[in-house]
Amino acid sequence: MNNKIRLFTPGPVTMSTRTLAIGASQLPYNRTEQFSQITFEIIEDLKYIFGTQGDVVIFAASGTGAMEAVTFNFLDQSDKVLIVNGGTFGQRWVDLCTQHEIPFEQISLNPGQPISLEALDHRLSSQEYSALLINAHETSTGTIYNTKAIGELTRKYGVFFIVDAISTICADIFMMDEWHVDVSLLSSQKALALPPGLSFLALNKKAKLRLETKTCQSYYFDIKEFLANQQRGQMPFTPVIGHFIMLHERLREIKLRGGVNFVVSRHSKLAEYFRKGLKDLPFVLVPKRPSNALTAISCPKGIDAFDLVTRLADDFNCFVAPNGGDLKHRVFRVSHLGEQNETDIDFLINALEDILNKYQQTDKSNNNGNR
Amino acid sequence: MNNKIRLFTPGPVTMSTRTLAIGASQLPYNRTEQFSQITFEIIEDLKYIFGTQGDVVIFAASGTGAMEAVTFNFLDQSDKVLIVNGGTFGQRWVDLCTQHEIPFEQISLNPGQPISLEALDHRLSSQEYSALLINAHETSTGTIYNTKAIGELTRKYGVFFIVDAISTICADIFMMDEWHVDVSLLSSQKALALPPGLSFLALNKKAKLRLETKTCQSYYFDIKEFLANQQRGQMPFTPVIGHFIMLHERLREIKLRGGVNFVVSRHSKLAEYFRKGLKDLPFVLVPKRPSNALTAISCPKGIDAFDLVTRLADDFNCFVAPNGGDLKHRVFRVSHLGEQNETDIDFLINALEDILNKYQQTDKSNNNGNR
Repeated sequence: MNNKIRLFTPGPVTMSTRTLAIGASQLPYNRTEQFSQITFEIIEDLKYIFGTQGDVVIFAASGTGAMEAVTFNFLDQSDKVLIVNGGTFGQRWVDLCTQHEIPFEQISLNPGQPISLEALDHRLSSQEYSALLINAHETSTGTIYNTKAIGELTRKYGVFFIVDAISTICADIFMMDEWHVDVSLLSSQKALALPPGLSFLALNKKAKLRLETKTCQSYYFDIKEFLANQQRGQMPFTPVIGHFIMLHERLREIKLRGGVNFVVSRHSKLAEYFRKGLKDLPFVLVPKRPSNALTAISCPKGIDAFDLVTRLADDFNCFVAPNGGDLKHRVFRVSHLGEQNETDIDFLINALEDILNKYQQTDKSNNNGNR
Repeated sequence: MNNKIRLFTPGPVTMSTRTLAIGASQLPYNRTEQFSQITFEIIEDLKYIFGTQGDVVIFAASGTGAMEAVTFNFLDQSDKVLIVNGGTFGQRWVDLCTQHEIPFEQISLNPGQPISLEALDHRLSSQEYSALLINAHETSTGTIYNTKAIGELTRKYGVFFIVDAISTICADIFMMDEWHVDVSLLSSQKALALPPGLSFLALNKKAKLRLETKTCQSYYFDIKEFLANQQRGQMPFTPVIGHFIMLHERLREIKLRGGVNFVVSRHSKLAEYFRKGLKDLPFVLVPKRPSNALTAISCPKGIDAFDLVTRLADDFNCFVAPNGGDLKHRVFRVSHLGEQNETDIDFLINALEDILNKYQQTDKSNNNGNR
């Protein structure tokens, strides 16, 4: 058993030494000018990360909190929403709209299936939808949608465009303003390689106007309150102070190290390296168009994905992500997020080979036994 | 300028070396049996801390999130709620009920004024209220209410009793079940001396039944979902993993070190020590019945509380909490939470004396100048 824990999960991810050093430090008091200054800088840098000239608010909540903030602030019963549902997180939009009685229809996709732009164009051309909700990267299947092309369509038909970009920003290119995205989301524990606990919501001018026409259904997630408090670099409620300091440092690091493009290309290289290493093994990649954040892998017949995930953890201290629901025994996911390198990936590939060999041996001896 | 930062704020607070060591560690993956085991143990220990045989759920949110979870899950338009409003956090209950159109009336108290049990008895005897909402410790004024006696009244009249105990649990005695509290709340960054980012909601059997009669108005704060997932030691959404590990360790430490009573008595001693040290200075304590968590101090005429708070920070690296609203220039607050000791308190008292002396000198030279 190798003692080093290797995280290939799409959150939590392995964090940098710098981030951990901040984790070991006492917290500053947050109601000070110094902390306001940090907050101002964080918000500026987050705008850069999202690719927007708009606003960004920071919630003390997980990504689902930010998703619900969307329904609390931007949508209501007067809307009719179209949802692209290609997995667990598309389904989450469906659940949220159901919860809040927001009228919706959905385009259901099979795992890994891309969105047909023609079909979407046709659907939106009916002019019956006020908003489109997608997950730029459907984390449950590793599928990345063509957000840019979809943004052209929502723009053409004047449809409000909301994008969960939680697990794609900094892993893949994402340009909120250029792609005509009105609202988008991000979490701390994905490609930013920070601990979970923070989520971010970016909104453009159009979204800010929409905010004014709706009554927010939550006190804790009231974006107008966040925007008002951020004028003075403060949050309406106690922020996750330690995470703010880590985020501040991490965003500065990204800028110093060559910017978003550099971080994206690093994730791209890791993803490519892993997929290349996988070529000789009997696995099939689930999506046609995978994100750099993650590789979703379908197991060959006779191999139980969930069992494989368990063996990787128990025998090799390698943590990959199991799938839920129908895919539990068929698919597992390997993330390329966080502080991992080629050596870690080699280790994982070797571990996978080792487990596959053991399956074969068991298979043979089972077959022998049956004779 | 003394370089050591001393936090006397009611969150964030100075954390222990053990907690910080965990902050410096990589995170474990949370969808594992080991993490479920940690979660089970945390929940058991939190029940002990609350003093309940009921259930406890854990939100990735600040205390206000847990307060709104109360209104999302337990109250609706069919209720009529009575709120004790003795400051900022009483007002927060008012704001939340306003936000969610929950009919309410309030008992408004002056800063530091105790609740009149006779008046409350009379009010509740009208039988027109379905629930009573209080803040066991109104953190904005340092006032602790007699939750036990109030619990006798709500029990007598069959009124559902909801208590924000965020800044009192582990600082003062709090016994949820014995005091007939139906729902109560706690946050990580108060007397538990952890970083902000987690909040806890405890509910008894009666509250669990009430849950069934209401439709939760939030997906993120749906207590039924939390209870269902906790059956297997998991959260419905990504938890603040690092904080869980810190909490696990901290709760174990509390038990090992002599339990809740020991922690309460430590806070009591620190509060007493500070208040004794303050005796020769021209300050007045705000509440008649102060919590061990915090001392709210009223400044003599001619001394601006906010200016004093700023000088303590700028000249002595001592962070005490300013007040908001009407009290901003009159009152400041010194918390006794976190890893502080008598030496820290001596340092603060000396700093206060020093500042008061400087005020006097300026006063004299001003007077001279005026002649």
